[in-house]
Amino acid sequence: MSRVDGRTPEQLRPIGFQRKWLDHAEGSVLVEFGRTRVLVAASVTEGVPRWRKGSGEGWVTAEYSMLPRATHTRGDRESVKGRIGGRTHEISRLIGRSLRAVIDTKALGETTIHLDCDVLQADGGTRTAAITGAYVALADAVTWAREHKLTRKGANPLIGSVAAVSVGIIDGVPMLDLPYEEDVRAETDMNIVCTGDGRFVEVQGTAEKEPFDRALLNDLLDLGARGCAELTTLQRRALEG
Amino acid sequence: MSRVDGRTPEQLRPIGFQRKWLDHAEGSVLVEFGRTRVLVAASVTEGVPRWRKGSGEGWVTAEYSMLPRATHTRGDRESVKGRIGGRTHEISRLIGRSLRAVIDTKALGETTIHLDCDVLQADGGTRTAAITGAYVALADAVTWAREHKLTRKGANPLIGSVAAVSVGIIDGVPMLDLPYEEDVRAETDMNIVCTGDGRFVEVQGTAEKEPFDRALLNDLLDLGARGCAELTTLQRRALEG
Amino acid sequence: MSRVDGRTPEQLRPIGFQRKWLDHAEGSVLVEFGRTRVLVAASVTEGVPRWRKGSGEGWVTAEYSMLPRATHTRGDRESVKGRIGGRTHEISRLIGRSLRAVIDTKALGETTIHLDCDVLQADGGTRTAAITGAYVALADAVTWAREHKLTRKGANPLIGSVAAVSVGIIDGVPMLDLPYEEDVRAETDMNIVCTGDGRFVEVQGTAEKEPFDRALLNDLLDLGARGCAELTTLQRRALEG
Amino acid sequence: MSRVDGRTPEQLRPIGFQRKWLDHAEGSVLVEFGRTRVLVAASVTEGVPRWRKGSGEGWVTAEYSMLPRATHTRGDRESVKGRIGGRTHEISRLIGRSLRAVIDTKALGETTIHLDCDVLQADGGTRTAAITGAYVALADAVTWAREHKLTRKGANPLIGSVAAVSVGIIDGVPMLDLPYEEDVRAETDMNIVCTGDGRFVEVQGTAEKEPFDRALLNDLLDLGARGCAELTTLQRRALEG
Amino acid sequence: MSRVDGRTPEQLRPIGFQRKWLDHAEGSVLVEFGRTRVLVAASVTEGVPRWRKGSGEGWVTAEYSMLPRATHTRGDRESVKGRIGGRTHEISRLIGRSLRAVIDTKALGETTIHLDCDVLQADGGTRTAAITGAYVALADAVTWAREHKLTRKGANPLIGSVAAVSVGIIDGVPMLDLPYEEDVRAETDMNIVCTGDGRFVEVQGTAEKEPFDRALLNDLLDLGARGCAELTTLQRRALEG
Amino acid sequence: MSRVDGRTPEQLRPIGFQRKWLDHAEGSVLVEFGRTRVLVAASVTEGVPRWRKGSGEGWVTAEYSMLPRATHTRGDRESVKGRIGGRTHEISRLIGRSLRAVIDTKALGETTIHLDCDVLQADGGTRTAAITGAYVALADAVTWAREHKLTRKGANPLIGSVAAVSVGIIDGVPMLDLPYEEDVRAETDMNIVCTGDGRFVEVQGTAEKEPFDRALLNDLLDLGARGCAELTTLQRRALEG
Repeated sequence: MSRVDGRTPEQLRPIGFQRKWLDHAEGSVLVEFGRTRVLVAASVTEGVPRWRKGSGEGWVTAEYSMLPRATHTRGDRESVKGRIGGRTHEISRLIGRSLRAVIDTKALGETTIHLDCDVLQADGGTRTAAITGAYVALADAVTWAREHKLTRKGANPLIGSVAAVSVGIIDGVPMLDLPYEEDVRAETDMNIVCTGDGRFVEVQGTAEKEPFDRALLNDLLDLGARGCAELTTLQRRALEG
Repeated sequence: MSRVDGRTPEQLRPIGFQRKWLDHAEGSVLVEFGRTRVLVAASVTEGVPRWRKGSGEGWVTAEYSMLPRATHTRGDRESVKGRIGGRTHEISRLIGRSLRAVIDTKALGETTIHLDCDVLQADGGTRTAAITGAYVALADAVTWAREHKLTRKGANPLIGSVAAVSVGIIDGVPMLDLPYEEDVRAETDMNIVCTGDGRFVEVQGTAEKEPFDRALLNDLLDLGARGCAELTTLQRRALEG
Repeated sequence: MSRVDGRTPEQLRPIGFQRKWLDHAEGSVLVEFGRTRVLVAASVTEGVPRWRKGSGEGWVTAEYSMLPRATHTRGDRESVKGRIGGRTHEISRLIGRSLRAVIDTKALGETTIHLDCDVLQADGGTRTAAITGAYVALADAVTWAREHKLTRKGANPLIGSVAAVSVGIIDGVPMLDLPYEEDVRAETDMNIVCTGDGRFVEVQGTAEKEPFDRALLNDLLDLGARGCAELTTLQRRALEG
Repeated sequence: MSRVDGRTPEQLRPIGFQRKWLDHAEGSVLVEFGRTRVLVAASVTEGVPRWRKGSGEGWVTAEYSMLPRATHTRGDRESVKGRIGGRTHEISRLIGRSLRAVIDTKALGETTIHLDCDVLQADGGTRTAAITGAYVALADAVTWAREHKLTRKGANPLIGSVAAVSVGIIDGVPMLDLPYEEDVRAETDMNIVCTGDGRFVEVQGTAEKEPFDRALLNDLLDLGARGCAELTTLQRRALEG
Repeated sequence: MSRVDGRTPEQLRPIGFQRKWLDHAEGSVLVEFGRTRVLVAASVTEGVPRWRKGSGEGWVTAEYSMLPRATHTRGDRESVKGRIGGRTHEISRLIGRSLRAVIDTKALGETTIHLDCDVLQADGGTRTAAITGAYVALADAVTWAREHKLTRKGANPLIGSVAAVSVGIIDGVPMLDLPYEEDVRAETDMNIVCTGDGRFVEVQGTAEKEPFDRALLNDLLDLGARGCAELTTLQRRALEG
Repeated sequence: MSRVDGRTPEQLRPIGFQRKWLDHAEGSVLVEFGRTRVLVAASVTEGVPRWRKGSGEGWVTAEYSMLPRATHTRGDRESVKGRIGGRTHEISRLIGRSLRAVIDTKALGETTIHLDCDVLQADGGTRTAAITGAYVALADAVTWAREHKLTRKGANPLIGSVAAVSVGIIDGVPMLDLPYEEDVRAETDMNIVCTGDGRFVEVQGTAEKEPFDRALLNDLLDLGARGCAELTTLQRRALEG
């Protein structure tokens, strides 16, 4: 069973992390999952949103967006339309939740980290690439914040790592890390977010064409967990490099 | 291990379906999961959205909203704020996808069914109550559409049933159908959408406090599937009543 | 001269008040004028809008809205359109003004009461049903606020009662409390808001088809005042019940 | 009982109509009620809004707006705020309804007339000045449309005249045509719109401070009807001039 | 080479300034450049925008807008569309910058002056008429602010005068102060803003049809500077009048 | 007189063009002016906007935007704010006009080219980098359109080249291509857009601090024209490479 790009079903696309791609941001990375290219900027600011003031705890939040010509045909800008679409909202919230799973907000103190994930080119898996890249940018931003004494003294706000990957069923076969061409053909589509120690942060599975049974669900969960483990290794290397 | 309201961990709240609660809508139900009360109206209209015209296929879509005082403290209206929040968008999309899983859009023909799910009172599980109730309203609307010859002749657009329930882990124990008070305490929160024949349509699990391992995930999936099976029985009874 | 639903010209539709329909709101009522059904929630909050701070006076305000399928054919949601229509604005303002006529804002102290009037089903007279029901919810909310010491000590902020009804001219005959079917046929349409002691708070008459002379105007005012008096009796009973 | 500006209670302010104040518009007038100054432009366009196409009938509609510094202190622009306020909506709708009362839309044919009423300076009574001036601009626009064969042959779409004035109760005395200073002091505020033959098109009375009884209401209606009759005479003169 | 309206290429249209056209504004002018008519209101308010608080410096800002029927055919209101167009934004910013060039914000102290420039009738050159008129309204507003002790004691915030004019190339000939009819025919269009002592504040030239060479650019700059000098004289006279 | 980065006053920053940076777009470039980095995507689509249909002529338009963390401190997204700022509008319009100066819209036929200019990193001169880069992306897109027979047969829609650069006066000295640090210090700031044959398309000069005289203006124009000539050479090389 060979895939569009010659990979085996359980193989990731070529993954790249170009750290510190931006000069101003406290953390940044240009992450690539095959042809999918996401620029992540992590911005550290003192203080927290109003509803969190006085809590002594920090905040990590994300905004996801796609450039108009990231895709095969040009889409309208959300700034021009004057409103953010449901898909954008949904993915921004997912990225934020995923990253907060590895942050000790008490150790962060009243500091906010924004993760801006802008898709420069899209070829499937943009949300999982964004989460995986955002972790790398976040790690650099936390280091910067600690060096600049913006976090609680002594404590490390970063309490783990997080990575994400898509899995799907095509012609009955579970496959890892789908490019756009496979994504549109998949019967079921699932995004798995795991911590570096192999536990689940998010599991989102959708039957695009046909409801799936428990056995297939188990296969997808196994495949996704293995994919995240590989991405964890690559993230570690990037941060050591 | 007794719960806030005296239920066992694997017990549903009292479930109610008041069918045909509205006079104008082609299908409608006031669904109750304990104190959570959602009014669902199914509206049948000839024709489909522009991007689907000429396809010969129909469309089912949903809009979810909450009245300002559905909750403990009053929230601002989204119409007054001038924009729909991310959570509202996300849930509307989830309801739409879940219902489309049991619709044969070819059999529907170029007809649209809108499912308006308005939460009159919220006490946890509003999205799962909405999906479960929307199925009942949809079934009535499809019957109406068939009687009025708005669907493809001979074929039944309704190819199954769908129900949804929340499950969560509280103090390490998996529990079914969480009210608000339990929801805010849950370490992990999951929404399960199943068809009447026991297959999965959507699985959305989020580690609110602590990432979860595979064993707990399995327990949650089992518990949710059993809850959906019970709801399926109640839906069937309501539609026969 | 018999009407669509068999009433005489000066007869109200069956009127219903289901008090405390909601569990969270400080006052609430599901009010029915025939098939018109409006859910009113009264929310008490400490403090007043910015422009009123430090005045020592309270504030009562209303928001009116219609569910998309309250009507015969589905309307678009204002939250989805991103803007509130002129009709909605106009009615919200009318309800707020009407209720403030029976509130002593000094006695209320710096407390705000929001009246959310959501039309679940529309069959003419939604604004008059909303005002009439809102008074009942307001009375319960004021009682609650007094019990919780949120009003000025000793004084009762509720200084009267208020009710509203529509009147119109159909085929030259003045008629009370028009359902939708009569409303569209009326030559002149008037909404009358009166206090429990029979004085006028608002008089809004519009020649929909033909300008009206002073004699007809007098007849409409008389008929409306009598209708309000009847509604006052029904409100009193509901609040005693 | 003398007034702020020396008038008697039943006297209008100095009224002025500068017709054809604009070079491009098909009808226009700069109308003055004392220091209140409204520029009205009537624009004739072929065709009607979508919902009226094919009906053979025309449409007359109005938009009311206030320049930011029409008032004593500067207000924010609605274009900058990105939304139209309830008051603006309400007045625009009132003007449109009032003018349509003297238009035979069948005789107009499928032609639209927009009445733009922009308040250059506000000193009370802006909506009544707008209606009274809009009639003059409308009359000129209808003449233009007839000359350019944009109306149904033979028929005159203008079937009457319309004027409007405010009345109010100050210290128990009914007074005509209130400037801003009196308006804020009035216990009751009423706007009367009459046709040239003395019938009512709109009656909108609001108890700003104290509910009013039937006797006072009658006095206000009489006073307003007399004021409209005077304005009718002045409109006729302006159109002959 | 005679022009549409009989002027020579280097001649201004008839220029008019009606000072104090409004009763409430601290400064105001109805400025006319031929048939172009702009109403400018200058509003003085204590305090400055948030980002400038505590700086000890004042702020001058402008908002430009066009009435819907200022033009040959009616345009939609920006308040109705819910968003301000690019052209409006651009011109508002240009007017603000131009006026700030002759204001010593330190001498102004923490006071804000808003310049509202509303085009009542448009016939080309609305932005240059707005700037030229706004200077006159600003001068009156500064005088008012000084009399009311709202500026820094002793210092005069007004440190010069400013005027603006359009120039363009038509059939190869540089022409001054283009009306609409010439504007649409111009190959190149330039707006020049100069101080009363002949220096440049803004130079904005655009090749509408054909790129222009340095020689033509020089001619346009000379012509514009001379036009501004004439306008400076007329402004001075108006302010003395 | 040495500059922040060691350049002479009339020296450009290091300029880079990475053509075909995107896989999907018909033309694309990552353009760098020092640390300023703009990603330009040119999208070719059949057809033209509604107002141009049936004219036989094509259209070229641009949208400029900045990623939130392109700058030293994070800015809010315009899509989140729900409205596009004046500066964004202004620059988008400038880029569109500049590029249209070298396009023969008749030769283009009814085809549209969108130029999306997204600033990934900002260090002054983003609009001039965008124009200069957009020309390169446009040239590739036109080639693509001609190969795919989307332009008028035989004719070349690209009739010249266009480049842009900023110039400014710092401490009285005219300087070329200002980075952010110099930009904020400049007394006068000017953007020059020239065609490849040395004529002017746009000249926009603003006295940020001090009005400028004719002699300085001449120096700036000379310096800007020389800078554009250099950029023209670099563009040509990039397109040949």
